[in-house]
Order: sequence, then structure tokens, then C-alpha cells
Amino acid sequence: MEDTMTEQLTRTLPLLDEAGRATLFTAARTANRFADIPVTDAELREIWELARWAPTGANTQPLRVLYVGAGDARRRLVEHMDEGNKAKTEAAPAVAVLALDTHFHEHMSQLLPFRPELGDVLGTNEELRTSTGRFNAALQAGYFILAVRALGLAAGPMGGFDATGVDTEFFPDGRWQSILVVNIGHPGENPWFDRLPRLDPADIVRWA
Amino acid sequence: MEDTMTEQLTRTLPLLDEAGRATLFTAARTANRFADIPVTDAELREIWELARWAPTGANTQPLRVLYVGAGDARRRLVEHMDEGNKAKTEAAPAVAVLALDTHFHEHMSQLLPFRPELGDVLGTNEELRTSTGRFNAALQAGYFILAVRALGLAAGPMGGFDATGVDTEFFPDGRWQSILVVNIGHPGENPWFDRLPRLDPADIVRWA
Repeated sequence: MEDTMTEQLTRTLPLLDEAGRATLFTAARTANRFADIPVTDAELREIWELARWAPTGANTQPLRVLYVGAGDARRRLVEHMDEGNKAKTEAAPAVAVLALDTHFHEHMSQLLPFRPELGDVLGTNEELRTSTGRFNAALQAGYFILAVRALGLAAGPMGGFDATGVDTEFFPDGRWQSILVVNIGHPGENPWFDRLPRLDPADIVRWA
Repeated sequence: MEDTMTEQLTRTLPLLDEAGRATLFTAARTANRFADIPVTDAELREIWELARWAPTGANTQPLRVLYVGAGDARRRLVEHMDEGNKAKTEAAPAVAVLALDTHFHEHMSQLLPFRPELGDVLGTNEELRTSTGRFNAALQAGYFILAVRALGLAAGPMGGFDATGVDTEFFPDGRWQSILVVNIGHPGENPWFDRLPRLDPADIVRWA
């Protein structure tokens, strides 16, 4: 009982301060033009060092990341981007293709050792495996975008690309399936459009 | 040209500091037991005030949030939780049911005014509407979990519940479809299990 104060303190988690909220949520913007400042491989690795700790259902962690460097690989990616996304993807200092590992269940005995049967269940039930994989990969894509921002970088996520073309080009064995392409860099001149409207919270949040 | 220095500074975004990284990613944990400290409605509203700014594909914003208070509503929710999730969902200071608005496309003329045709495209192409809605709602669920943490609260996201039962109970008109239930509060005694392993970054991140 004499430890109530300490106990109380250990129970109280720190808030994210205003600067942190601005960096991740309130001031951050989707970038369409990038400055001519390189993004290092160390920075790209650090994005995943952050994003990997955020939670997934049954610890499945189905998201995978392919960083596409400048040069030939980038040109092969740009071919499959929608017209409006080609120039900025070509010019971005770094580009990530986020993908679902369709065989994520093969890691389950390592990832959830106290439920050794789950890998088999997911292995035989393709519908469950697909819905679980897609949901959790998208959840992790959200973490990835915020982790890019945590590194002081701007993200430009794009759904506008030919996924089949990208997969054939970069994942020919069929195991990874692209879900999002994310340009990454420091913002350049006029880097973003006007902010698009958000729905009124009264239309989003209800109470029961 | 004399403004190069200033220009450079405006291009440089702030990093998230170590404390912020700990709060959102590296030290944060999924809570299974909560302290007897209330979570206020103001805090619950503030979660969305943060999460709503993070980006979605074509600005679709398909995620919706139902906060289920204590008492009768909570009991009706707990009935549909998997056995292992019942007690903690009953005891949590606050609980959010995250849902997909299956008719999110009806807002598109407001959300993406320069592409007025997109609402109709999504309205008539059910397959595209469903895949777009599910992907972006899951992406926003990731933002939501990190926004809970930004408020100094612990999140306990759970996929283990009967979604059809929850939807019939809380969303009888069929428009919203539950995708995740998230317990929210301050961590209690022994609030979390040992941290589960993460995949080796070498298995996640590739380079092309």
C-alpha cells in the first residue's frame, strides 16, 4: 500500500507531445515533390525498426517491404504506375513497394509459439488466410506511413498502379503481392496540394 | 538564391524524438488489464482528432468508430467476443468497435471534389468498393491504434469476436461492418504478456 504512488506512476503512460502529434498526424502531409536530398539506406532500415513493433492480429506480421533504388529497377516500377504517379515515382529519393506475404502463416510457429496449430489452420483455410493477411498487411501499411514521418521524412503513398504488373516484374514466384507504393523523401518545392477535407467527426464517431 | 538556407530549413521536417518513438512504437504494448482510472469522452474524441489527419487512398476515409460504454451496451458486445476476450472487454474503461462504412463512396463528391465521377464508379463497382473500403479502413485502424497511444493510453486491439453477431446487434441497417474491437485504458496490474517475437528485418525488407 505504501507503494500506491509509485504504482500509479508506472501505470501512467506518457502522452505524445504537440511536436510529435504535428510530425505524425496534424501537420504531416502527403508529398508529391521531393527535394534533391538523398534518403540513406540506414534511414530506410530505421523505418522498419519502428514500424515492426506495432501490433498485428495473432502476431501475424504479414507485411513485406521492397525498396526500389534509382536506375533500372525504378524504371521497371514506373512502367506499372498510373500516368499521374509516374513522374513523382521516378523522381522520389526512395520508393517502397509494400506487399503482403501470402505465405505469412509459415512463420506462425515462431511468432505465436503457444498456439502451434494456427499455422496449419491458416495453411489449409485459404479464405481465412487471405482475409487475415490483407487486413493485417494494411494495418501495418498504416504503421509504415507513420514511421516514415517519425524519421522526419515525407511519405507519398499511392494506390494507383498496376499491381499485377508490379508483381510479375518484382515478385515472379507469386509469394508477395503488392498492396501500396510509397514515395519517400524530404519535401521539395510546393511539395503538397491543399489539404483535402476530412469527414466531420460527428459522422465518424458514435456512442452506444 | 540568398534564401537557400531558409528554403532548406522549410524542407526539413522534424524527427519524432526518442520519447515519442517509445510512446508509439518501441515501448508501447498491447494491454490486457487496465487500471481503475476512467477514460473520458474528451479523450476518446481526441483519438479521432489525431487519427483523422493520416492519409487514405483517394481520401476515402471509410473507417467508423462506435464507442461502447459500460452497462447494458457493453454486456451486449461482450456476448459476441471470443471466450478469451470477454473478461477484459467487460472490464476495460473504454471500448471502440472499429467498422467499415460500406457506403463510404456516398461522401466522395465532398472528399475528392476534383474527381466527381469516383463516387459513381465506386457505387456501381461493388468489388472495387469492397476492396478499397477494406484496405483503407484497415489502414485507418492502424492510425487509430497509434493515436490511442499518442493520448497516453494503452490499446488492446482484438480480432477475436463474432463480427456478424456484433453487426446484427449494433449496426442492424447493415451499413457499418465491424473489423476490429479495441479496449482502451491505462494499464493495470501485470498489464501485458511477454512481448512476442518480431520477424527478422532481413526477412521483411528487400532491395531492388
